[in-house]
Amino acid sequence: MRTHQLVLQWIENQFSSGQLALGARLPAERTLAEQLGVSRTSVREAIRILEAMGVVRAGVGSGPEAGTVVIAEPAAALGSALRLHIATSHLPVADIVQTRVLLESWAAARARTGSPALTEAARILDRMDAGLDPEAFMELDVSFHLALAEAAGNAVVTAMMGSLRESIRNYAGGLTANLSDWPATAARLHVEHGEILAAINGHDGGKAAELVAAHIEGYYNEAGLGLSGGALI
Amino acid sequence: MRTHQLVLQWIENQFSSGQLALGARLPAERTLAEQLGVSRTSVREAIRILEAMGVVRAGVGSGPEAGTVVIAEPAAALGSALRLHIATSHLPVADIVQTRVLLESWAAARARTGSPALTEAARILDRMDAGLDPEAFMELDVSFHLALAEAAGNAVVTAMMGSLRESIRNYAGGLTANLSDWPATAARLHVEHGEILAAINGHDGGKAAELVAAHIEGYYNEAGLGLSGGALI
Repeated sequence: MRTHQLVLQWIENQFSSGQLALGARLPAERTLAEQLGVSRTSVREAIRILEAMGVVRAGVGSGPEAGTVVIAEPAAALGSALRLHIATSHLPVADIVQTRVLLESWAAARARTGSPALTEAARILDRMDAGLDPEAFMELDVSFHLALAEAAGNAVVTAMMGSLRESIRNYAGGLTANLSDWPATAARLHVEHGEILAAINGHDGGKAAELVAAHIEGYYNEAGLGLSGGALI
Repeated sequence: MRTHQLVLQWIENQFSSGQLALGARLPAERTLAEQLGVSRTSVREAIRILEAMGVVRAGVGSGPEAGTVVIAEPAAALGSALRLHIATSHLPVADIVQTRVLLESWAAARARTGSPALTEAARILDRMDAGLDPEAFMELDVSFHLALAEAAGNAVVTAMMGSLRESIRNYAGGLTANLSDWPATAARLHVEHGEILAAINGHDGGKAAELVAAHIEGYYNEAGLGLSGGALI
């Protein structure tokens, strides 16, 4: 095992044993290096990896805000990894979309009415005016879909779903340019969002799942992803 | 943007544009540092992150085998990230198991009969003797379930499913100690694997999905994960 991996393992053990919890600060680089008998370079490399994994945020400067803090941003980290693997062409975009449909229809069927996440989804929907430009609309769209996923109460599904959106963010942003009539598409997406939310609030999980699947597939088809074979699942 | 992130972005662009493909070698650290006008330390940090993401394997020494090679191991990388997030307690193990059930029952319903992955699953099953010790049995178990997932033809679902197993590998290993009668459990798991494969080969995807769900939930319940509420999906 290389020295930066020793540091990683030590820190992971600190997490597992509860010595280092969310919001806590890692010991200073110099302290860690001395304690583990490794170079500061190795400590720095381990911290860079933990940053990329969404487990810590590296601090700068000095004072109360300085130091490396333990955070929990799994979706961003998994999203970066997926994006890299899409770039090396081993994870086709069509598979990403199909997985979105799978996770999101599952979550829609299990979204808990009355949960704070669902209230948040309704609040986001109110702000999704069809007059918004594609970028602003899509940012709210991501939040809306994440809130629906969260309402199902499975943190892993929510993180994975978030990572899928994150991984194709640039790609999806480019897709809006393919749409012949953005305001019409935005208006349709808005109506569909309302229908999905109504199905969940009406305790019809099966219908909510179907609507979400059709909503996601419909969008990518319209934007010309060219999913062969039509339906994704 | 910090300098190691500049290096990361440059390499990701090389992937996207096809300048760097699977199996290719990254330029030497010194060359990259000079070309991008950054320190070798920053280049090294970026490479460490790419390694952790399962996108490159860092080489050592000199000669034809030296250098940093582009690889594609998304499951291992996502698994490490999930494991870290489980350690910081933000991804409950029960949610991991529920997500396994979701992904694997979906894949079982869509596994293609006659696909190479399914042939491989049958070959692994032949080697899963109930007389194996838990560790050897579980290693084949992971391969068997991965082959089933692969037979559905979605690389993202396969990678995510692999990452879930990877993330709870140590945890799951510990669970076998809770079983009162390992040979009996192993024999039952073996029978269930055969039934799942038979359902797929008999073109009964719905039954295969149900069997996989019951198989996974049954195991974790028996091993005392204590999934509240009984059924997972």
